[in-house]
Amino acid sequence: MQQMQRFRLIIEYDGRPYAGWQRQKDVPSVQQCIEEAVAHLEGGEQRVVYGSGRTDAGVHAMGQVAHVDIYREITAEKLREALNHYLRPEPISILQVDEVEYAFHARFLAKRRHYIYRILNRRAPATFNKGLVWHVKTPLDVDAMHEAGQVLVGKHDFTTFRHIHCQSDSPVKTVDYLEVSKQGEEVHIKVGARSFLHHQIRSFTGTLKLVGEGKWSKAEVVAALEARDRDALGLNAPPDGLYFWHVEY
Amino acid sequence: MQQMQRFRLIIEYDGRPYAGWQRQKDVPSVQQCIEEAVAHLEGGEQRVVYGSGRTDAGVHAMGQVAHVDIYREITAEKLREALNHYLRPEPISILQVDEVEYAFHARFLAKRRHYIYRILNRRAPATFNKGLVWHVKTPLDVDAMHEAGQVLVGKHDFTTFRHIHCQSDSPVKTVDYLEVSKQGEEVHIKVGARSFLHHQIRSFTGTLKLVGEGKWSKAEVVAALEARDRDALGLNAPPDGLYFWHVEY
Repeated sequence: MQQMQRFRLIIEYDGRPYAGWQRQKDVPSVQQCIEEAVAHLEGGEQRVVYGSGRTDAGVHAMGQVAHVDIYREITAEKLREALNHYLRPEPISILQVDEVEYAFHARFLAKRRHYIYRILNRRAPATFNKGLVWHVKTPLDVDAMHEAGQVLVGKHDFTTFRHIHCQSDSPVKTVDYLEVSKQGEEVHIKVGARSFLHHQIRSFTGTLKLVGEGKWSKAEVVAALEARDRDALGLNAPPDGLYFWHVEY
Repeated sequence: MQQMQRFRLIIEYDGRPYAGWQRQKDVPSVQQCIEEAVAHLEGGEQRVVYGSGRTDAGVHAMGQVAHVDIYREITAEKLREALNHYLRPEPISILQVDEVEYAFHARFLAKRRHYIYRILNRRAPATFNKGLVWHVKTPLDVDAMHEAGQVLVGKHDFTTFRHIHCQSDSPVKTVDYLEVSKQGEEVHIKVGARSFLHHQIRSFTGTLKLVGEGKWSKAEVVAALEARDRDALGLNAPPDGLYFWHVEY
């Protein structure tokens, strides 16, 4: 009987052409592209590629993690090269492959997920980074954004910051940190938590943008959080600037 | 009689969709896109946008400089906003506009032009930066590249490093500096000179890539330069990673 090997993949992708990570009917997804590359290797056999978390349409990844079981004998390095070969037309890149224990599970064993949101903060529109950043023309007060962002850190009911179709059982999550910093012409929002609600980071970003523009005070962020009401959200940011950064196990 | 104003434009663009900077028949160019935006403002009148230098098909700019004469009364800031408005579908962005003396000329008064060549140096293919970097899989020896690059600094006959269709009167140019450095997963080659020959930086980059891979020694770069023969060039780099960085006046 052939031995099966489990591999962990670290994946970078440009989310622009995809309806998101998750395989769906009739629309292109990142998961489907990688599963098709795996099937090429496995003599046409379908294998499921389990991601550590979903990303929405147009959301990118610098370090999505997934696992897959391969029945053909292959080294981690050869698997990475072969997958990248079959993925070549797609803006999806397998950065790293490691053989892992069969007990490893990309989704269930993830301890903390980290995201970055990139805002291009200048008058002139984006060129190279169109669709890869959120273009905000008004100069943002990064210190005010960071300070107001601390309101969102900790264990809270995040009903205000969750999409109405969010499938999570509970709106209560614990945000471990939220850091806003200036990187040249960009403002970066970094945030980490065990798990997130649907649209949570985009809702955080939209809110902090209002603070950065001077339209909202820190007190208004507190009020929005305490309202526990989606209608209390000032603004939801577009998917363009959002990156699934990395995962801790 | 209406007063004419001369404006200097600083321009960023993604070169992927264009046949280059220069207006040509039947193919899209950066110059044409900007001239069409200007014509919108000028009641359909055609104005020439003079660039400080041409860029080839697929070559990008972070700080191309151009000048244009506008007959309608307008402030520099409003001109920038209006041009960016009309350019919106294009990955071309007017970063800065200043009113300048009529004696200013973007091309003839340029004292030094600076370029950056970006190499993505890792096994995994590019995703976000497809077409915006040159993907080189072999780990490059950046110190060896920098050292060999110093051979190309100074006044030389650069026949080896010029395209056979280069229109420059003389193959003799003076390269002011060439710096190779590691920036995360990328290797950057920065180079400055009063002016360059056609494909000069791409020819430098191809050569230094051979050095970085250990295929060429510094002595072979010297020999290639001294050969004054295009056939002595080891490799010409693709346009993807080349950026017109900025111009000094």
